[in-house]
Amino acid sequence: MRSHYCGQLNETLVDQTVSLCGWVHRRRDHGGVIFLDLRDRDGIAQVVVDPDTAEAFATADRARSEYVLRISGRVRLRPEGTQNPKMPTGLIEVLAKEVEVLNTAATPPFQLDEHGRVGEEVRLKHRYIDLRRPEMIEKLRLRSRISHNVRDFLEGQGFLDIETPVLTRATPEGARDYLVPSRTHPGSFFALPQSPQLFKQLLMVAGFDRYYQIAKCFRDEDLRADRQPEFTQIDLEASFVSEEDIMGITEAMIRQLFQEVLDVELPEFPRMTWADAMHRFGSDKPDMRIPLMLVDVDDLMQQVDFQVFSGPASAADGRVAALKVPGGGGMSRKVIDEYTKFVGIYGAKGLAWIKVNERAKGIEGLQSPIVKFMENVIEELLDRVGAEDGDIIFFGADKAKVVNEALGALRVKLGEDLNLYTQPWAPLWVVDFPMFEADDNGRLSPLHHPFTSPSCSPEELKENPAGALSRAYDMVLNGTELGGGSIRIHDQAMQSTVFEILGIGEEEAREKFGFLLDALHYGAPPHGGLAFGLDRLVMLMAGARTIREVIAFPKTQSAGCLLTDAPGEVSADQLKDLNIRLRQKAKAESGSE
Amino acid sequence: MRSHYCGQLNETLVDQTVSLCGWVHRRRDHGGVIFLDLRDRDGIAQVVVDPDTAEAFATADRARSEYVLRISGRVRLRPEGTQNPKMPTGLIEVLAKEVEVLNTAATPPFQLDEHGRVGEEVRLKHRYIDLRRPEMIEKLRLRSRISHNVRDFLEGQGFLDIETPVLTRATPEGARDYLVPSRTHPGSFFALPQSPQLFKQLLMVAGFDRYYQIAKCFRDEDLRADRQPEFTQIDLEASFVSEEDIMGITEAMIRQLFQEVLDVELPEFPRMTWADAMHRFGSDKPDMRIPLMLVDVDDLMQQVDFQVFSGPASAADGRVAALKVPGGGGMSRKVIDEYTKFVGIYGAKGLAWIKVNERAKGIEGLQSPIVKFMENVIEELLDRVGAEDGDIIFFGADKAKVVNEALGALRVKLGEDLNLYTQPWAPLWVVDFPMFEADDNGRLSPLHHPFTSPSCSPEELKENPAGALSRAYDMVLNGTELGGGSIRIHDQAMQSTVFEILGIGEEEAREKFGFLLDALHYGAPPHGGLAFGLDRLVMLMAGARTIREVIAFPKTQSAGCLLTDAPGEVSADQLKDLNIRLRQKAKAESGSE
Repeated sequence: MRSHYCGQLNETLVDQTVSLCGWVHRRRDHGGVIFLDLRDRDGIAQVVVDPDTAEAFATADRARSEYVLRISGRVRLRPEGTQNPKMPTGLIEVLAKEVEVLNTAATPPFQLDEHGRVGEEVRLKHRYIDLRRPEMIEKLRLRSRISHNVRDFLEGQGFLDIETPVLTRATPEGARDYLVPSRTHPGSFFALPQSPQLFKQLLMVAGFDRYYQIAKCFRDEDLRADRQPEFTQIDLEASFVSEEDIMGITEAMIRQLFQEVLDVELPEFPRMTWADAMHRFGSDKPDMRIPLMLVDVDDLMQQVDFQVFSGPASAADGRVAALKVPGGGGMSRKVIDEYTKFVGIYGAKGLAWIKVNERAKGIEGLQSPIVKFMENVIEELLDRVGAEDGDIIFFGADKAKVVNEALGALRVKLGEDLNLYTQPWAPLWVVDFPMFEADDNGRLSPLHHPFTSPSCSPEELKENPAGALSRAYDMVLNGTELGGGSIRIHDQAMQSTVFEILGIGEEEAREKFGFLLDALHYGAPPHGGLAFGLDRLVMLMAGARTIREVIAFPKTQSAGCLLTDAPGEVSADQLKDLNIRLRQKAKAESGSE
Repeated sequence: MRSHYCGQLNETLVDQTVSLCGWVHRRRDHGGVIFLDLRDRDGIAQVVVDPDTAEAFATADRARSEYVLRISGRVRLRPEGTQNPKMPTGLIEVLAKEVEVLNTAATPPFQLDEHGRVGEEVRLKHRYIDLRRPEMIEKLRLRSRISHNVRDFLEGQGFLDIETPVLTRATPEGARDYLVPSRTHPGSFFALPQSPQLFKQLLMVAGFDRYYQIAKCFRDEDLRADRQPEFTQIDLEASFVSEEDIMGITEAMIRQLFQEVLDVELPEFPRMTWADAMHRFGSDKPDMRIPLMLVDVDDLMQQVDFQVFSGPASAADGRVAALKVPGGGGMSRKVIDEYTKFVGIYGAKGLAWIKVNERAKGIEGLQSPIVKFMENVIEELLDRVGAEDGDIIFFGADKAKVVNEALGALRVKLGEDLNLYTQPWAPLWVVDFPMFEADDNGRLSPLHHPFTSPSCSPEELKENPAGALSRAYDMVLNGTELGGGSIRIHDQAMQSTVFEILGIGEEEAREKFGFLLDALHYGAPPHGGLAFGLDRLVMLMAGARTIREVIAFPKTQSAGCLLTDAPGEVSADQLKDLNIRLRQKAKAESGSE
């Protein structure tokens, strides 16, 4: 029906007859002539309809915004002075010979140009209109290219695309499962997978050697800003590999992806231990575009006569750290107050600061509510953080966890607010994670999942589980965790030890993961893998602010779909078929019996 | 950890040192030497461990079936007389220098070579062992190649890979939905999609122009032999297209797929109307490898004095058809009885037949229980079916539906039993389907789905809905429906007419498909598409007998997974979170209240 996409037209086609199909993006009547901007997924072309072509003119005259038209006509250069060099098709226009209305359109609930004026709710409800915006089409086109590029790379590396079940059992990630009642097994339920973790390990036991899948995963969690109940993973696993193999392959994959899709040459991926990341950046996914760093001052603050600092500085689980912002000395009291409120979100009880006005003047050259308490250590402190005139130094003093989270978040916020970025892309590997994390009662839980291999022997693990490190690795880009993985346990004895430490009894282990434990008995190879969050990867690469912008039909924060009005009510017969009833209704029924 | 896959070894590597990782497929001790067949996903290599390498020998001596080993050694030619030209690696062997046990293995529940001796249940329960069989790995590798080839083709044609939701609303296919209770919307349920139909139409309204997805779909149906509760579709849709465009693109896709993956040049895809297919082959997916055809003999049988034939021949909804099997005259009574039983499955009350022993002898040369009734038409009958000496002619006489189904199935069975195939691959397009089918009460329902466009105007459709044809098309290969699709309705008025004919009131239509109807208001382009069943396509290409063989983790007939024991029980708390309770349990509870 068309000879070209609108966006493909250019000067080389002058004098040729083309046919276009698309939507009326804008219509103007000017000097007795109708100008139609015709839009398709590739761009916008200007169509001129002259009263001389009477039939075409009459048809075009009926056309309204978002009508679907087919147009044929001759490409010509726009008259001098009306050219628009900002538009790819801005040098030419099409003089229409024929105009056909393929479909009419009711007045849309919002104009594409004015999508910012309506709330996200309206746009989600009419998603098929919101998706017409060229930038939305571009983002989903980018997503398609990213998926395909990743697949090409992995196929080239010998990874096989193998589909794992969606109707399955609870998986070990520990978030809340989505459940599916079974009709043929009354009283039983499938769980939608939180990841293909167990199945990919089984595929390794089966000998597939290299597996990948771009897989839908599901978590029924209360949604934070950047979560969706269904999300997509680039999931991969390989046998007879070490950390280096998996990190090498996936780093090459991401580098090639950025190269081929964005024409960006990513810098080297430095490696950082988890301990180092927490210590220096207060985060296990530090944004390395930001040249700010947490500096330890525990030893100094133990010497000050200021309980708020000396207490945490001396406590085993406490920490006092400084965060210097070069040139930040000009911050107003109001701005500092805002940052104080900000770190409060992370549990910090305050935000101490020192402005370095004139270092040469000694303590007189400093401005700060707290400096009076630390005269004895001030020079050493300023030396340690490398303070210069015009800087501001923030302090966190609390439990280490609070200090890390508060100053870590403050660091990222300062980077954004002050636009401190030193580079557009800063990738990073974080390695040497702890095997376990302890809750307040000292109970251990796996930092990743219970199939992650420790980097020590079962005996060493038993001896000091809290200090054990795992063979896990996370890929971080610009402060976002792109993906994470590990070498898995392939040895029965090690797996039992881990379950034991986690307080998972034999019976519970069998009931939950029996089939995997069985599989480990029958010749499991050493194996490991990694899973990337595709939505977040695309979001970063598209420069989008939320993953909702890179998902065609996203859900809201309450896990609903405004477009289709899902979830919805179902009939009593359907529930009966599934051997379930609604809790509320069941109560009402029992009352009337 | 390895330098080569086992299956990669060949004579060019003689005298090189290689390292291999894999499973002990077989172990033999012969003449004081240990022979290990080491298996990985690429093949099997023979490893020789000599007592001279004492440490390696001692390790190899511990190795049992399915142990996981790493071996390094020198490639050498096998001694004259011990070569195995049937094996790709049969000319060489590896003389081990080092042998390392990476993991032990308990005695597997069945030997790979002897999988045929255990039932499918045992193999599904230990699927990770069953998948180790080289032919299983091959089938899933083929599946991976097929997916990737299809993606490459569609990407090349400008189709964008766009993911549609899995947690969604009921879709219009009409099979039973899998439901997912919502925690955040108590009393409401998501449905898992039976297809991405509605979403892909919305993507066309949004202007994506060309969409594809390899998508998981779900139907909670009682499973026939060749169904799975979750299955995979190659789903595509395009805008501003006609039937010819979609058929052209998808035919090219399948031709290229067969060419590149199987090295098979598919013949031309002939087209056949649905009416023709039913009439000549008794099926809407005729297997064109079989050179048998149903021949209409209504006009002749109206003239015979045999109510069993003359009745259906004269009835409006009746049919009498003949199916000649060349050279089938030698069938024993027992075989004919079996075929009679077979057509009984499809509702046929009997299977009349005539054996043509010597046509020159006239009626004397025929053998048949029924020929005496049809002396007056016998010569014309024999001429019409082209009967020759040695043939057998079967007859169906009943309602047309019964005759078509019974003789259609018999035709396929005869083709298989007598190996009548004229070619390995026989593709076909079936077109011009009826818009609707009538149930026994004359109630119309859509043959495809209610968004399929008829090939006439709304007025003509209203006038004669039962006679209207649709713009649908099915691709058939070797008697299997590979895929089906249609040009959709993009016009509100047409959509309303179709709903009206189907007896779907405005309110019901709004409730079920309101968002699509809305979308049709706002400038929907003409569009159409097609969906292929990937599982069946792979099954055909792999020469597998069931789709279970080409799915890594299939479910049983009762929609359960023997490996993971899914579906399983869930906790009371989980049910409470979801605002549901079990029907059985709810009863017990109300009794005790």
